[in-house]
Amino acid sequence: MTDVSGLSIGILGGTGDQGKGLARRFALAGLSVVIGSRNAERAQEVAGSIGAGATGAANADVAGGCDIVIVAVPYEGHKALLESLTAELSGKIVVDCVNPLGFDKQGAYALPVEEGSAAQQAAAVLPDSRVVAAFHHVSAVVLMDPAVEKVDLDVLVLGDDREATDTVRALADVIPGVRGIYGGRLRNAHQVEALTANIISVNRRYKAHAGLRVTDI
Amino acid sequence: MTDVSGLSIGILGGTGDQGKGLARRFALAGLSVVIGSRNAERAQEVAGSIGAGATGAANADVAGGCDIVIVAVPYEGHKALLESLTAELSGKIVVDCVNPLGFDKQGAYALPVEEGSAAQQAAAVLPDSRVVAAFHHVSAVVLMDPAVEKVDLDVLVLGDDREATDTVRALADVIPGVRGIYGGRLRNAHQVEALTANIISVNRRYKAHAGLRVTDI
Repeated sequence: MTDVSGLSIGILGGTGDQGKGLARRFALAGLSVVIGSRNAERAQEVAGSIGAGATGAANADVAGGCDIVIVAVPYEGHKALLESLTAELSGKIVVDCVNPLGFDKQGAYALPVEEGSAAQQAAAVLPDSRVVAAFHHVSAVVLMDPAVEKVDLDVLVLGDDREATDTVRALADVIPGVRGIYGGRLRNAHQVEALTANIISVNRRYKAHAGLRVTDI
Repeated sequence: MTDVSGLSIGILGGTGDQGKGLARRFALAGLSVVIGSRNAERAQEVAGSIGAGATGAANADVAGGCDIVIVAVPYEGHKALLESLTAELSGKIVVDCVNPLGFDKQGAYALPVEEGSAAQQAAAVLPDSRVVAAFHHVSAVVLMDPAVEKVDLDVLVLGDDREATDTVRALADVIPGVRGIYGGRLRNAHQVEALTANIISVNRRYKAHAGLRVTDI
């Protein structure tokens, strides 16, 4: 298994719920975590609120300074942010966990993405980066809940670069309870992103914070 | 919980692997099961090989004679078959478990469907039926394996008709080990169908017959 203990993890959009939750769990696991935001002060503030040694910086500094960069921004700003960071992200493992969803009175639904998925959009914008898709179905509420010691779900990790997906699987594994599981090539990322709409439907119906486990492995 | 014990279950395309596997499990659970095929003799032959009281008939007789009709045909013949059975299927619960997938050297991938998904295609062709999407991720190998007493996965059940999805959830529950779980409206069926491509990738990588469990419910 790949050793990720010496790697620094940057989280673009790390002041949002999901980014903050992931930052918290990685920092608690002893990894070096830098939260990114458009506003460096805001990033430092959120990092301080998380504790466990997390720090904060402007998105561009996070992208340039970290070994693995997680993209946890709203879909609306996804493409433009990545276009502004192509140089900083060159050669790096970029982990896209963005879910392009719309919401109306009937709940959540998948938005069409010209490139097929947010992850494929990232790969198109960042041809020199190693784009991996992961962490789509992780509940931010669960990640932030101090009462949850073990997070009861698996993380599907998708990508076309075996070494990169192995590294991100190992990164998922550092969260207690979580298994990082290879889930296919980037061309099959759309349905994993879109499935978040179904998980939201499950959560509404069952008053839950649902996750997925893969059986027989 | 809805009582399905008195209902008859018809399976269009029941001579294929998935249809046969579902027929076997429902018949073993004591339900009245009729396998459908273009060729009635072939259907009867397969029903006999399954045992447990399953019978066989031509697809049109199955569609007209059963309370719940499961559609387990290859995607290629999906639309044409349903168009030929609109009268027989009127007013019935129609359970679509078709996965529109393509295959190439890199594995499986989701096919585009004009209506959005196979289930939405069924709903468009059958405006007088109660279309539900379910049983997409159930491994035919596991369903047919006599050594597997309990099937270790949940079945996501999607649809816009609450009574119909409750009935199909109860139908999934009759398979030992399985839970039928509401998974959203029909407009979110595409990603559930397409996710079968990812499960195929998991199976290849891990030499498994993977399924999904929903956690926290």
